[in-house]
Amino acid sequence: MMDSETAMEVTARLPLAEYAARIKRAQAGLQAQNVDYLLLAPSSDLRYLTGLDARVSERLNLFVVPREGKPAFYAPALEAMEPAALAQDGLFNLIVWQEDEDATALFARAALRRETDSGNQQTPISLAVGEQMWAGFLLRLQQQLPHAIWYPALPITGPLRLIKTAAEIAALAEIGAAADEVFARLITIQFSGRKELEIADVINHMLRDRGHQNVKFAIVASGPNGASPHHTAGERVIQAGDFVVLDFGGPGFHGYGSDISRTVFVAGAAEGFEPTPEQIKVYTTVFEAQELAFEAVRPGVTAQELDRVARDHIAAAGYGPAFLHRLGHGIGLDGHEPPYLVQGNVQEISAGMAFSDEPGIYLAGHFGVRIEDIVVCEASGGRRLNNAARELIRVK
Amino acid sequence: MMDSETAMEVTARLPLAEYAARIKRAQAGLQAQNVDYLLLAPSSDLRYLTGLDARVSERLNLFVVPREGKPAFYAPALEAMEPAALAQDGLFNLIVWQEDEDATALFARAALRRETDSGNQQTPISLAVGEQMWAGFLLRLQQQLPHAIWYPALPITGPLRLIKTAAEIAALAEIGAAADEVFARLITIQFSGRKELEIADVINHMLRDRGHQNVKFAIVASGPNGASPHHTAGERVIQAGDFVVLDFGGPGFHGYGSDISRTVFVAGAAEGFEPTPEQIKVYTTVFEAQELAFEAVRPGVTAQELDRVARDHIAAAGYGPAFLHRLGHGIGLDGHEPPYLVQGNVQEISAGMAFSDEPGIYLAGHFGVRIEDIVVCEASGGRRLNNAARELIRVK
Repeated sequence: MMDSETAMEVTARLPLAEYAARIKRAQAGLQAQNVDYLLLAPSSDLRYLTGLDARVSERLNLFVVPREGKPAFYAPALEAMEPAALAQDGLFNLIVWQEDEDATALFARAALRRETDSGNQQTPISLAVGEQMWAGFLLRLQQQLPHAIWYPALPITGPLRLIKTAAEIAALAEIGAAADEVFARLITIQFSGRKELEIADVINHMLRDRGHQNVKFAIVASGPNGASPHHTAGERVIQAGDFVVLDFGGPGFHGYGSDISRTVFVAGAAEGFEPTPEQIKVYTTVFEAQELAFEAVRPGVTAQELDRVARDHIAAAGYGPAFLHRLGHGIGLDGHEPPYLVQGNVQEISAGMAFSDEPGIYLAGHFGVRIEDIVVCEASGGRRLNNAARELIRVK
Repeated sequence: MMDSETAMEVTARLPLAEYAARIKRAQAGLQAQNVDYLLLAPSSDLRYLTGLDARVSERLNLFVVPREGKPAFYAPALEAMEPAALAQDGLFNLIVWQEDEDATALFARAALRRETDSGNQQTPISLAVGEQMWAGFLLRLQQQLPHAIWYPALPITGPLRLIKTAAEIAALAEIGAAADEVFARLITIQFSGRKELEIADVINHMLRDRGHQNVKFAIVASGPNGASPHHTAGERVIQAGDFVVLDFGGPGFHGYGSDISRTVFVAGAAEGFEPTPEQIKVYTTVFEAQELAFEAVRPGVTAQELDRVARDHIAAAGYGPAFLHRLGHGIGLDGHEPPYLVQGNVQEISAGMAFSDEPGIYLAGHFGVRIEDIVVCEASGGRRLNNAARELIRVK
């Protein structure tokens, strides 16, 4: 019966009034954008609005927020127990669907009935759909509501979660400090002669020990593998003389995530290897770019300006094309969420936004370097939520 | 940098000719349905057609299969290394997109150009979209191709994977036997006095020991928790006298999955508890329903008939409404895939289809029972890929 998605643990529940207030804010967004319904599948948006960790599967858990009035939750019968408790508390109306029914059809019928009842059949229904709903469900909805107008929900849901509250920042800080401790312990173990996968396993255990609810597969990219930013961890045996890019994290029990990268030098157990001048130059360039971008964080700076600061520094050192990715991404209930620090994004950074600052240089066939902290923008500038050593560390 | 999705390991690669042949079959499906393009995001469909385990994230890896000619793969620059190797081998054309670009816009431009070049601007472009692509990407595609016609890809991709080859069945059998061994070891450990989560942890370790690539969160639903079919595992301490529903599995390194459920009775270490008459009646009813459905498996029976056989038996025992879910689901590269054994599904079962046979009875506030095997339909009838003991087992 197991689903293909890892079932998430129940995260800490907030008081009902908090979820009710968040739903009101979503409804204000619908009114401002003149959209009738917000439709969400299981996702961080759903967790944010209800606290529900529903399953992602071929059985649709569908949360419908109308422009005004009480939301509706369409739950498959065998997963209705948790939403039933919230419905009893009055947060939404629960519609339980059976195995031979279909949440999209039930909602479509209800939406059409509502239009008929209100006598409003001139204007087509408009709906904003959550980013991560499966396309298959959206296509079925579109088939059943052929005259409706469909929008991405991101312009409505994105702003809700963009500015973190003090409690959200505290959660990010707590799990960030836990990730720092994992790094501090990690650099005491032996790297040379061990497979990347073994190191990844150690990281996973340490993360679980230190309050991470989901074991994620950590990135351990050694030597030439480090030149591929999204290499995870494989069979390669780590050698003395290697740079190793380490990048790990995951959500804590409150749902807010950590994400840290460091690049270490493998001196070996007894060999006493030293980094080459090129390794040092690349490391120093990334280190400085990361620091410069951090120092540029302040309310009013745009997302692309932060990226530009790091990119210009790396380009000036001659490695421009080797900085293969954007400077960073927002973080919260999702590991990646707005704001994205990328060229073309003119979004202004405000106090309360949290994002990664993670420049990198990737030299194909040779090695890579990435250094990453989570940073919160405060009124006076940036505050790092990761404080593990950023200087070049030598490991055994 | 870590994504919110667990990065999957690279599964065993098949010879290139096998993927080329599968793509040809997908193209035959497009021609039969008169659709111009198949669009896939990272998913089992993509793995099936290319062997690529691309990441699910806000950076779209987009695979485009045209009705004829060479497919195209749109990869973000920092994840282009693996697809580049396949492009070099000629499986598809690779289009690498940069951080300030957008895969949907690049594809839309190419599709419009192709229509113009072919002089075919009368008929609108038609596209079939993979079930699990994020709705956000589909909405962006729809915005950029406003005159196109959109279909779910399931009628094209579903049939490709519905009838398993001998090699696919061998992979399912191998990982099924591994799950059986986990169950055999599991029933030797102590249950009473331990939290569900501890047992789930043991299962996870055993699954990894026995060739499972992804540690999934196992279902350990004890006592009243067993009455919720999708309860995972929590803080409840297991008591002597409990029924415990165990349901676990996950993909092997070849990508094909296991999925087994058994319900055990906790006799306790020394207490020597005995099941109540009601527990025995419910267990026996589920056991018989599972067996009857298995015996009904043969080519030509419909999916809903198999469900009906089990449902009628459970209803006759007086527990009809307590069988909360369908009888089963197909299994392959996805843990849940067609055929679904559910009322309303008149699909005929054929030799080579693999699916779960998993009736259950759920008594709210009391306990639940589920027994599940993976079954393959052969010319002469069903063959079970799980052979762990199905009789009521007593554990400590």
